[in-house]
Amino acid sequence: MSSHTVSGQAMVVLFSAGDHRAIAPALQHLAHAQSMGFESHPADAADPEQVFSRLSAEHQQAALVVFGGGQWQAGSALNTPPEAWDAAWRSQCLQGARVGQAAIQAMRPRGAGTLIFLGHTHSVTDAQPARHGPPQAFGAAHAAASAGLRSLAQSMARGFGPQGIHVAHLCIDAPLPWSTRTAPLVAQTCWALHGQGRSAWSHEIDLRCLPEPDDHQPRATI
Amino acid sequence: MSSHTVSGQAMVVLFSAGDHRAIAPALQHLAHAQSMGFESHPADAADPEQVFSRLSAEHQQAALVVFGGGQWQAGSALNTPPEAWDAAWRSQCLQGARVGQAAIQAMRPRGAGTLIFLGHTHSVTDAQPARHGPPQAFGAAHAAASAGLRSLAQSMARGFGPQGIHVAHLCIDAPLPWSTRTAPLVAQTCWALHGQGRSAWSHEIDLRCLPEPDDHQPRATI
Amino acid sequence: MSSHTVSGQAMVVLFSAGDHRAIAPALQHLAHAQSMGFESHPADAADPEQVFSRLSAEHQQAALVVFGGGQWQAGSALNTPPEAWDAAWRSQCLQGARVGQAAIQAMRPRGAGTLIFLGHTHSVTDAQPARHGPPQAFGAAHAAASAGLRSLAQSMARGFGPQGIHVAHLCIDAPLPWSTRTAPLVAQTCWALHGQGRSAWSHEIDLRCLPEPDDHQPRATI
Amino acid sequence: MSSHTVSGQAMVVLFSAGDHRAIAPALQHLAHAQSMGFESHPADAADPEQVFSRLSAEHQQAALVVFGGGQWQAGSALNTPPEAWDAAWRSQCLQGARVGQAAIQAMRPRGAGTLIFLGHTHSVTDAQPARHGPPQAFGAAHAAASAGLRSLAQSMARGFGPQGIHVAHLCIDAPLPWSTRTAPLVAQTCWALHGQGRSAWSHEIDLRCLPEPDDHQPRATI
Repeated sequence: MSSHTVSGQAMVVLFSAGDHRAIAPALQHLAHAQSMGFESHPADAADPEQVFSRLSAEHQQAALVVFGGGQWQAGSALNTPPEAWDAAWRSQCLQGARVGQAAIQAMRPRGAGTLIFLGHTHSVTDAQPARHGPPQAFGAAHAAASAGLRSLAQSMARGFGPQGIHVAHLCIDAPLPWSTRTAPLVAQTCWALHGQGRSAWSHEIDLRCLPEPDDHQPRATI
Repeated sequence: MSSHTVSGQAMVVLFSAGDHRAIAPALQHLAHAQSMGFESHPADAADPEQVFSRLSAEHQQAALVVFGGGQWQAGSALNTPPEAWDAAWRSQCLQGARVGQAAIQAMRPRGAGTLIFLGHTHSVTDAQPARHGPPQAFGAAHAAASAGLRSLAQSMARGFGPQGIHVAHLCIDAPLPWSTRTAPLVAQTCWALHGQGRSAWSHEIDLRCLPEPDDHQPRATI
Repeated sequence: MSSHTVSGQAMVVLFSAGDHRAIAPALQHLAHAQSMGFESHPADAADPEQVFSRLSAEHQQAALVVFGGGQWQAGSALNTPPEAWDAAWRSQCLQGARVGQAAIQAMRPRGAGTLIFLGHTHSVTDAQPARHGPPQAFGAAHAAASAGLRSLAQSMARGFGPQGIHVAHLCIDAPLPWSTRTAPLVAQTCWALHGQGRSAWSHEIDLRCLPEPDDHQPRATI
Repeated sequence: MSSHTVSGQAMVVLFSAGDHRAIAPALQHLAHAQSMGFESHPADAADPEQVFSRLSAEHQQAALVVFGGGQWQAGSALNTPPEAWDAAWRSQCLQGARVGQAAIQAMRPRGAGTLIFLGHTHSVTDAQPARHGPPQAFGAAHAAASAGLRSLAQSMARGFGPQGIHVAHLCIDAPLPWSTRTAPLVAQTCWALHGQGRSAWSHEIDLRCLPEPDDHQPRATI
């Protein structure tokens, strides 16, 4: 892209780990259909700021940034060791903060952009009792980290919405591992959020992904 | 205490930091009034398990354990550096998990005990917009860590309530720094929770602490 | 009581229906132990204002008013007829508004008093999925009315707390019909709320009432 | 439409009152663009079932039904008379139940259809403190009725989602009266919900509608 380009090419940038990685093809397809660029990074990218400074140097604009970190792991609140609490929190909440900060820094100068955090049903802690039976089937560390990520998304939405940046939290309720149908639906929901005009933004959406009727492989349900 | 004691002396054990430390005198007073022992530890005690194993060796029983970690710090979701996210999370959520795990391990053999986490209004993230104006006055890292602590308390309540352990989250809404009246009221609420019979437990209580009418010192409000 | 009495006798006034009626003996006992008067009315009292104007004429003060209206009834959102929606709403939310308004009018001149609404788990609608299976076992009308009552309690707390009136919502989670142990525990929780000093009030408390271990009669669980 | 039509024409049916009426043109436009029919009724239609039985007789299918009843009115929890509580509840929650029941009855035989309830920020009662100052500016009756409507939507979603009917609650946060931009955005969000495939449904979405930057007419904000 020549340096004469003033406005730059709009880009979709995905940071993902675990099941979340599966949304990449659908998100790329949606981006290209709108003549937007797409690039995908691991959720635990060492230096998210560098991603955005490179894009800027290449005269590209981060129009939509999606962060889906972490991975559910079983473990009750009692038998989860400190390293697992730490890993869950780092991969979701801390890395979410780092990616979110870098994205907002990149979006602020032009006062526009969409930042979406992929969260989970149990980030709304009241919803937990509905789905989990015995303590050992519960992912206590993942739930706590998800609650932190949701709080982060709300802080960013409140702080930077008035500056033109649309921050949203997508509360996904899906059997694990995700079925082949789940990922494209998550990608489409991200796209719909990005398409909202700035005079009417959603900040939190739940998305209940059902297993296919003809889907017989055994799954854990979170 | 002689080794002939079979049941052991009931103890109140406090782990506290920051403003939470101020509840120690009132909690001690309440404990002694009921012929219970009391001891106080820093919230960031290096080895919480050791505290409980020593109590056990001394034929003392942890009847009520209160954890109040962390300290509110200003900082928007954008300008909070990774170390501050880390410190907030470690001091509240991770250390809360460690103290809670040690307490539950100590309480399980006799199927009784009360474990209280001192949380904050902004752990219920929906409540945040009501209290905070400009992003810079907001404690984003503290809010995320508080949301994680609340999730932890809910996981422990769900998992170990059926085993006789009463886990509760106290959602404190108070101007900072706490006035001299706030701490005794928090201690009394802990005591009231501990006094609930096991056939009717509260798991979450809000506590709105007003500044005194004659209290003119300037305060930040969280 | 002689007309020379200036301050008047403090009174506990209960308005109750259904299972809630069972708290009357325990509440009366607690009132008398503190030299307070007690009177009990049906929740659907035709003219709540008249109750309070008579108390005032008799130089008595409504110190604590408890409202527990309505009664859970099975019925899915589809098969509940308009009359059942109407009855559920009138007995809880509308009558709660009338009793609450009368109580606040009586309490405002002296800027003190406690007003407690007995609510239910399903007033927090997010909690519903946890407890209910098939739609036909669900009390949709009761849930909607309970959600309205909770909103009412929050509106009154916000509006009249600053004027010295403590309004609280007690979110009871108990098998129906209430066991003999449940009612005294609800009464004690009301008493504990009334005992809170005005510099630290709780506005919402959950109370999870377990069936007795030796309690074998079949119960519906809400 | 001839009686030979087997599948029938897909219809969008709106029941609306107050500001909600303004979504009709945009919803009609979206329907026609997809070769769907559209009809609009007052929210307080005397006999919603008759609407759907007529459609059925005309070989038309209610594919998307939107209900937006009631109208915000100022009034604190103290000074709202019984008739106003009654009117708010009837126009939102009771009529919402009647329209919803009729829609579900019509949709069940073919196991498909979308039913959307237009709700409001204050249906999530925790959000109230954020927006309201003095009690007299508050719409207590509208808030309680909105909380009831949200509970109704959740009951219907839980009960009839498994039968193929997508029930959603749209939590609108907009200055009143709605600006000319708000209504089309609400209509588009209804359309997006209707477009979700049944393997990934949203059940609650917030929609924050900002006043236009160049919109200088004075507005109340709810």
